[in-house]
Amino acid sequence: MANLPECSALLLDQQGSRLYVTINRPEARNALSNEVVDELSAVIDAIADDRGIRTVILRGAGGTFCAGGDIKSFQESFQSTAPTDGSRDPIAINNNRFGEFMIKLNSMPQTLVGVIEGAAFGGGLGLVCATDIAICAAGTKFALSETGLGIPPAQIAPFVVQRVGITNARLLALSGARFNGPRALELGLVHFIADDADGLEATLKRVLNDIGKCAPGANAETKRILLDSQRKPLDEVLADAADTFARQLRGPEGQAGVMAFLQKQPAAWVETIE
Amino acid sequence: MANLPECSALLLDQQGSRLYVTINRPEARNALSNEVVDELSAVIDAIADDRGIRTVILRGAGGTFCAGGDIKSFQESFQSTAPTDGSRDPIAINNNRFGEFMIKLNSMPQTLVGVIEGAAFGGGLGLVCATDIAICAAGTKFALSETGLGIPPAQIAPFVVQRVGITNARLLALSGARFNGPRALELGLVHFIADDADGLEATLKRVLNDIGKCAPGANAETKRILLDSQRKPLDEVLADAADTFARQLRGPEGQAGVMAFLQKQPAAWVETIE
Amino acid sequence: MANLPECSALLLDQQGSRLYVTINRPEARNALSNEVVDELSAVIDAIADDRGIRTVILRGAGGTFCAGGDIKSFQESFQSTAPTDGSRDPIAINNNRFGEFMIKLNSMPQTLVGVIEGAAFGGGLGLVCATDIAICAAGTKFALSETGLGIPPAQIAPFVVQRVGITNARLLALSGARFNGPRALELGLVHFIADDADGLEATLKRVLNDIGKCAPGANAETKRILLDSQRKPLDEVLADAADTFARQLRGPEGQAGVMAFLQKQPAAWVETIE
Repeated sequence: MANLPECSALLLDQQGSRLYVTINRPEARNALSNEVVDELSAVIDAIADDRGIRTVILRGAGGTFCAGGDIKSFQESFQSTAPTDGSRDPIAINNNRFGEFMIKLNSMPQTLVGVIEGAAFGGGLGLVCATDIAICAAGTKFALSETGLGIPPAQIAPFVVQRVGITNARLLALSGARFNGPRALELGLVHFIADDADGLEATLKRVLNDIGKCAPGANAETKRILLDSQRKPLDEVLADAADTFARQLRGPEGQAGVMAFLQKQPAAWVETIE
Repeated sequence: MANLPECSALLLDQQGSRLYVTINRPEARNALSNEVVDELSAVIDAIADDRGIRTVILRGAGGTFCAGGDIKSFQESFQSTAPTDGSRDPIAINNNRFGEFMIKLNSMPQTLVGVIEGAAFGGGLGLVCATDIAICAAGTKFALSETGLGIPPAQIAPFVVQRVGITNARLLALSGARFNGPRALELGLVHFIADDADGLEATLKRVLNDIGKCAPGANAETKRILLDSQRKPLDEVLADAADTFARQLRGPEGQAGVMAFLQKQPAAWVETIE
Repeated sequence: MANLPECSALLLDQQGSRLYVTINRPEARNALSNEVVDELSAVIDAIADDRGIRTVILRGAGGTFCAGGDIKSFQESFQSTAPTDGSRDPIAINNNRFGEFMIKLNSMPQTLVGVIEGAAFGGGLGLVCATDIAICAAGTKFALSETGLGIPPAQIAPFVVQRVGITNARLLALSGARFNGPRALELGLVHFIADDADGLEATLKRVLNDIGKCAPGANAETKRILLDSQRKPLDEVLADAADTFARQLRGPEGQAGVMAFLQKQPAAWVETIE
């Protein structure tokens, strides 16, 4: 079993190579407190080099994914005194820290599956943007609601653009409108919708069984190449990908995977949920 | 009321914080003459620092959005003599000016809503690509028709790529095929389609009421962050977004928006069309 | 007729300005052997400066597009000895060469139409990503299946990201799941689907007739501008596009195209398949 940190705002449950992470603040509709962010960050750090955990499943307790930022804390923030000595505003420092967390969540080596129900507003919608595969209930309510509060969706804006493209990001951020699961699928925010709770679990099982066929190390390397290709020159990405390919093919996963394919047998890493 | 320039190719109508801009050359199907471009550019400049105008609605008179470039002027262009002294061809200079206009239109601080009917060809399709939210009638005819005239869709090509992605841009630009509203929605060119004129106005009203709930300054800052995220390094965008967040939260919009939310009342800036 | 190389793994058939290229290894489901790649590369080189060939149609013999890489050759690869003198692994060198081929295929000046049937797995899915316009049979099976073999989809990963966006690329590469034509359309991998073989040919004919209306040189220049806009600064792309516009408008295609339009006659380059 993985060496996981103690958490009070998250529930952690490891089953085989899968780590189920549940935001557990149902009384606050799982709003993103500093505690939630710090604990999620600690979990990601703890498993970063552990290929025994291949998949992380992120969801919210009580039928709601995440209702967004903690708006009462916004009130406390602006009631605090701004620095007058030219130093950076603590509000900006704290906000920027959330962006650093988003980078970490978005690029964790495990495959991150989001199970989205109830609501995903503001920062909750930001979390969805960092998943590799997102499944949502059709009735989920989504909104990028920040500008209705007089503030920009600051740290999540670039992740929304990466997720749904600039065309849909403009719509979501500048109208703040609520939308549901089918529209989230159309806009490219999620990959699958399910009509009800049973459908959601069935889709999750299917996705986990697909991921269970993929070699853990190959998936981690592939995710890195995909994300690198967004910001590095193409020839550099291709050269690195070629070196990675050679390393993987000569390594235990490549040898086992190719032999299993030629012998028409499942590779040793295949993990199936009944 | 805003201080707006005199226009002869555009109709301007300010209602509250909304500026309705109508291209008014129905006899030429609202083709993009230099006059249309110069006047639109002057309007954008005039309102650039005016947060009293929050939304610009762009449409065409006579049931047509914009039939594209002025093809007769193309004939005059190639009949002119090309410079022989090594200086830049005036055709290139004039074409490049349109690209500078496209940058300005695309990044104006107001939220730009396009209402698309009849036809959006060539440069008219380019205008659609610069809107934040585009609503079109199902029967609208679209085409990126330039290469059928022997010329590239030069200044609009990069905006088409940003709008619909490289995959769909290749299809549109290299086949020149006509398509209609439902296909424009599928391709990611527009956000909403309506079956008829009443549906178009109803959708526009709904979109304007959504934008009317968003704080004007927050929307302007958010639009800048979204567009910046396409071309600046992620850490730079996040740092700037954090500073913007702090400034907005401490400013009048953030304070009023958060207080209105906690008191379950509409913020002072909310503007609703009945 | 074009001066084409002798090929044994490809069938070449020129009809007017159209070059039909068929991967002809049906016994191996048209897997991407080195021979297939080398011959395709030689064809692209041979026609690079030949505007007499305007369109290349790529398909596979025997009802299958391309089943991907040659997995038996992977076995031979990892059984070879890795260099111990610090020189680059020949596996990496060979893999990187495929990326250079992908760049060449993706940016060939002709308009590249893919006709996809049967299966497009791994590298075969990579070829689809390099087409300008892709038409597929509804029943086609697609999968980015590499990580199930313990290896990353190394050289094609960046092209998948460009094609379907990072959001869908994460799904495809990290789950490896099979999907069919309608899902390929939804994900943005192909532009058109057809229910059966007759529908596939009818759609191909329509697409070829659309391309047949576009000026060959204008299409080649436009493709270059579109691809440049993904990696060069916007102002540089717009300046180059303006110079290209002036050159094309003063050149034979621009003059003929504009005159044909004003005289309501088809331009001389229009090519129609009955």
